[in-house]
Amino acid sequence: MNKYVIGLDYGTDSARALVVNAQTGEILASSVKYYPRWMKGLYCVPKANQWRQHPKDYLEVLEASVKEALGKCAPDVAANVVGIAFDTTGSTPAFTDETGTPLAMLPEFEDNPNAMFVLWKDHTAVKEAAEINVKCKENDIDYSQYEGGIYSAEWFWAKAIHVLREDPQVAAKAYSIVEYCEWLPAVLTGVTKASDIVRSRCAEGHKAMWHESWGGLPPEEFLVKLDPCLAGFRERLFETTETADKPVGTLCQEWAERLGLSTDVVVAGGAYDCHMGAVGAAVTPKTLVRVIGTSTCDIMVASYEEVGDKLIKGICGQVDGSVIPGMIGLEAGQSSFGDVYAMFRRVLEFPVKNILPKTLAGKLTEEEIQAAVDEVSDRIIAELTVEAEKIPLEESTMIATDWINGRRTPDANQLLQGTISGFTLGTTAPQIFRALVEATAFGTKAIVDRFISEGCPIESVIGIGGIALKSPFVMQTMSDVLGMPIKVCNTDQACALGASMFAATAAGVYQKVEDAIAAMNSGFAKEYQPDMQRHGRYASLYETYLKLGSFTEKELYVC
Amino acid sequence: MNKYVIGLDYGTDSARALVVNAQTGEILASSVKYYPRWMKGLYCVPKANQWRQHPKDYLEVLEASVKEALGKCAPDVAANVVGIAFDTTGSTPAFTDETGTPLAMLPEFEDNPNAMFVLWKDHTAVKEAAEINVKCKENDIDYSQYEGGIYSAEWFWAKAIHVLREDPQVAAKAYSIVEYCEWLPAVLTGVTKASDIVRSRCAEGHKAMWHESWGGLPPEEFLVKLDPCLAGFRERLFETTETADKPVGTLCQEWAERLGLSTDVVVAGGAYDCHMGAVGAAVTPKTLVRVIGTSTCDIMVASYEEVGDKLIKGICGQVDGSVIPGMIGLEAGQSSFGDVYAMFRRVLEFPVKNILPKTLAGKLTEEEIQAAVDEVSDRIIAELTVEAEKIPLEESTMIATDWINGRRTPDANQLLQGTISGFTLGTTAPQIFRALVEATAFGTKAIVDRFISEGCPIESVIGIGGIALKSPFVMQTMSDVLGMPIKVCNTDQACALGASMFAATAAGVYQKVEDAIAAMNSGFAKEYQPDMQRHGRYASLYETYLKLGSFTEKELYVC
Repeated sequence: MNKYVIGLDYGTDSARALVVNAQTGEILASSVKYYPRWMKGLYCVPKANQWRQHPKDYLEVLEASVKEALGKCAPDVAANVVGIAFDTTGSTPAFTDETGTPLAMLPEFEDNPNAMFVLWKDHTAVKEAAEINVKCKENDIDYSQYEGGIYSAEWFWAKAIHVLREDPQVAAKAYSIVEYCEWLPAVLTGVTKASDIVRSRCAEGHKAMWHESWGGLPPEEFLVKLDPCLAGFRERLFETTETADKPVGTLCQEWAERLGLSTDVVVAGGAYDCHMGAVGAAVTPKTLVRVIGTSTCDIMVASYEEVGDKLIKGICGQVDGSVIPGMIGLEAGQSSFGDVYAMFRRVLEFPVKNILPKTLAGKLTEEEIQAAVDEVSDRIIAELTVEAEKIPLEESTMIATDWINGRRTPDANQLLQGTISGFTLGTTAPQIFRALVEATAFGTKAIVDRFISEGCPIESVIGIGGIALKSPFVMQTMSDVLGMPIKVCNTDQACALGASMFAATAAGVYQKVEDAIAAMNSGFAKEYQPDMQRHGRYASLYETYLKLGSFTEKELYVC
Repeated sequence: MNKYVIGLDYGTDSARALVVNAQTGEILASSVKYYPRWMKGLYCVPKANQWRQHPKDYLEVLEASVKEALGKCAPDVAANVVGIAFDTTGSTPAFTDETGTPLAMLPEFEDNPNAMFVLWKDHTAVKEAAEINVKCKENDIDYSQYEGGIYSAEWFWAKAIHVLREDPQVAAKAYSIVEYCEWLPAVLTGVTKASDIVRSRCAEGHKAMWHESWGGLPPEEFLVKLDPCLAGFRERLFETTETADKPVGTLCQEWAERLGLSTDVVVAGGAYDCHMGAVGAAVTPKTLVRVIGTSTCDIMVASYEEVGDKLIKGICGQVDGSVIPGMIGLEAGQSSFGDVYAMFRRVLEFPVKNILPKTLAGKLTEEEIQAAVDEVSDRIIAELTVEAEKIPLEESTMIATDWINGRRTPDANQLLQGTISGFTLGTTAPQIFRALVEATAFGTKAIVDRFISEGCPIESVIGIGGIALKSPFVMQTMSDVLGMPIKVCNTDQACALGASMFAATAAGVYQKVEDAIAAMNSGFAKEYQPDMQRHGRYASLYETYLKLGSFTEKELYVC
C-alpha cells in the first residue's frame, strides 16, 4: 500500500503544500496560498526595513493549502498520509508566552508588530547586531565563530534585543522565543508549554549561537552582557536541539481534524528552507547546492571527519546536522544575484516609464500605453540575454563586482557596493548586462574557491530556483567560470520536496535522510558542462574581478 | 566708415562664414555649408578609424559660405571688407607637390585617400605614434617635450610616416606637407610654391615639434631616425612659423573674384579652431577657456615671464604665440565630455530601439513608431537632467571616472576606460547620470589643478560650445566642483568670431589681438557662481575620484 507525506515550504510571501508519494517521490498535488495580512502590507514599514508577519497568517494558509492539495488527490490519499514536515524562512523569531504561543495570538497584542514574527529580511536590528559583534570579539570565546564570525542584523539575538528595548509591553510579557520553523510543528503536535517546543538544530545552530562545545546557547553572563534585558531567557529557552529527521510528535486532535488527517501522522522537526531545499535537490558531499533567485543561498554538506571543529572562514555558518543528520551543514550565499540584473533592468526602464507615456499620449489609450510600457519592461532581460550571448568572449572586457546589496560570503561586508569598469565610447547595454552576469558568476567562484581553500572540496554544483531553471545563459556562464558541471533539478519545488523527505524519514519510511533522497529525488532536468577553453580565459577576468573588489573594499567602502 | 572682416571656422563636418563689423564685433550675417564628399562618407573607413577629407570639399564650401553670408548683408558691406581669417581642425595635414597643392587636387590622385587631408580624429597612425614616443624618450632632447611629452596618433609626423609607409605612389610624389589651416590662406593669396606657404605657429608648435630652442623642426637626423622615408622633407618644409595676427598676403585675383571681394583684402595667418575660439571668447591670463562639446579643448594663455621655458607636465602643449602673440598658449582637454552622456543615453535607448518597435507593431504605423522611438531617445538627456538635479548632494554617492575615450590631460593615456562605482539595490538612471556629470566636472578639476600645481594660476573659467550654452546643470556642477565662477559666452560662434578678430588685427584695424578682443568680444550670457558649501562636499568626492582613477590606471588599464 502507498504511503504519502506532506511537505510544507513557507516562503516570504506564501506557503506551498506538496502531497508526495513517500516511496517514489512522485508529486501528487500542490497548493500555494499567500499570507493574507502580509499581502495587504500590514505591520511593515518598508522605509525602516521593518518586516513583520502575523502568526495567524501562517495558520490560515496552513489549513487552506493542505486541504486544497489533498482535495486534488484521490480520496484514499489523506488516509494514507504518514508524515508532515515544514521548512520556513529564517531567522524569523517571535516572542511567546509561557504556553509557547506567539504574543500576537493574544488579544492584547494582536496588532503589535513587535509581538509578531520578525521576518528574516527585517533590518531594524542593525545597531544591536553591531553591538553583538563587538561583544563577541571582546569575549574569550567568540560565540559567533560557527556562524561565520560576523553576527547579522537578520538573526535571532539581534532581533530579540531590538524588540525588548523598543517595546516594554512585549518585554514584560515575553517568556520565551520561538523560530518560525519550530512553532508550526509545535502547534500541530499540540504543545502547551514553551519548554516543550522541540528546537531546530538548523535554526538555533546557524543563527542563535547554539553549539554543543559550549553546552548549547551562550552562557547567561554573556547574554546579559549583550543586554541586561536578556536576563533569565536562557534557562527558559532550551539546552538541546534536534535534527529535522526526528519526529517531534504526532498530530493533535484539533489539527488532525482541521487538516482532515489522522492523529497518527508524524510531524517532523523544522528547518530553514534552503537547508531542506538542498536535501530536496539531492545534495551530496563535494556538491554545492545553490538556491538561485534574487540572492543565492548556498548549502554544502561535509563529513565530521573532513571538517570537525575546524572553522571555515568567512562563510555563513557550519552546523552539525543542519542539513543531513550526521554531517556538517555549511551555509554561504550571495546577497544579490537576480537582483543585480533587476537593478540594471530598472535603470533601462527609465525612458520607457518616464518618457514613453508622454510620447504616446493621444496616440493610444491609457490602457494601451500602460500595456506597452509593461511589455517593454518585461522583455528587457530576455532581449539583453539574446544580445549578450552573441558577444564573443574576447570582446567581453568590462568587469563588474556583484555586491549591489553588500557581500554575504566570502567574508560578510554589508557596506560594499557594486562597481562596473571598462566603459568606452562604444559601450552597449548588452555589454554591461554580460559583465553583470559574469560578475554574479565570479561571486559564485569566490565562494567555491573559499570552500576549497578551507579544505571543503567542491566538484560540482546543483542549481535550484527560478534563475537556475530559466536562464541557460547565466548557468552556462557560471559553469564556464567555475570550470565545473552544474546540474539543474527537475523540480522547481525542491524545498517542499526536501520537507517531504524529512516527513518520510521522521515517519519511519526510511531509516535516514540519505535513503529518502535516493528514493524520492526528482532527477535533473539539465546538466551544464564547462567549456574549459572559456574557463581559461575567464581565469584572467576573474583575477581582475578580485583586484577590483579588493580595491573597492579597502579604499572605497571602508567600515 | 565701417570696416568689415570675415571669420571662417572650418569644423569637422562644415564650415561657417561670419561677416563681422571690425569696429564693434557686431555679427552681420553667417552661413554654414557642409562638406559635400565628407557628408556622403567618401574616403573614410570608420572601422579602421580612417577619416580623410578631400581638399575640394574645403574650397567648394569656402566660396559658397562667403557668398551666402555676404549676400545677406547690405550691398556696401562687401566693398568694405578689409580682412579674412581662417581657423580649422587640426592636426589635419596633407602631402603636397612642389607648388604646395595637396596631391588629391591632381587628377592622378583625386580619389586616393592618402593624398587627402588626414583629419584630426584619424587614428590610422597609432603604431607610428608609439614608435615616435619611444624614439623621443631615447633621444638626448625629447622633441615632444613642449607637446606634453606624449606624441599622439592624431598628429603631423605620425600621420606623415603612416601615409608614406602605406602608399608608395603618394611617397614618390610627396614634396611637402601642409596643415589645413595653412593651406587655405595660401590658396587665397595665390601661393604657387610650397616654400612660400606661411606656416602656423599654432599648428606646427603644438603638433609638429617645432620649437625655437632647437631651431625649428627637429633636425634631419632625428626625423630620419623616426623613419628613413622622412629623408629630405625637413629642408623642403620650413624654418620659421608665424602667429595668426600677421598678414600672409592679400587676396589673389582669382579668389577676389570668386568671393566678390577686393584684392586689397588682407588674409591673416591660420590657426586651430580652439585657439582662435579662446580669443573669440575673450581669453585673459588666469582664465581657462573651454570648448565643451563631445570632448573638450581647453586653452590658457600665460605671460612668458610666468611660464618661460618651464615644462608644464602632462598637458597637450605650450607654444609661444599659438593663441595670443607674445604670450604662451597652453592646451589641454578631456577626450570625452558630452560623449560620456551620449554613451549613457545610448545604453538607455536599448529597450526603446530594440523592444518598443515590436511592442507597438500593429498598433501604430511604422512612421508613427519611428517617430515615437526618436522622440523618446531625444528626450532622454533632458529628462535625466530634471531628475538628477533633484537628488540632494548628500545622496550623490556614486563615483565615476570620465575616461570612456581614454584621457587626454592631465597625463595622456588613451588606454584608460571609464568606471562607475556605488551601485546598490536602489540605483536609478538619474543617479548614474548625476555621477557621470560629476565625473566630467572632476575631470575638469584634474586639469585645473594640474595647471595650478605647475605654476599657472587659474581663477575662473569661460565656457563655449553646445553644452556650455545648453546645460545649466552641467555648468553649475562644474562651477561647484571647481569652486570657481564660470562665464558662458553670448556667442555660440566664438571660433569664427575669434577668426574675425585675427582678420581685423592682420588688416591693421587693431595694433594687437588684445585690442581686437576688447572691442569685438560678444560679452557673456551667463555667469555661474560656485556654491562653496557644495564645493566643500565635492572635495571629498573628488578625493574618491582620484583614488578610483589611480587604481584603474595602475591596476586595470596598464600600458
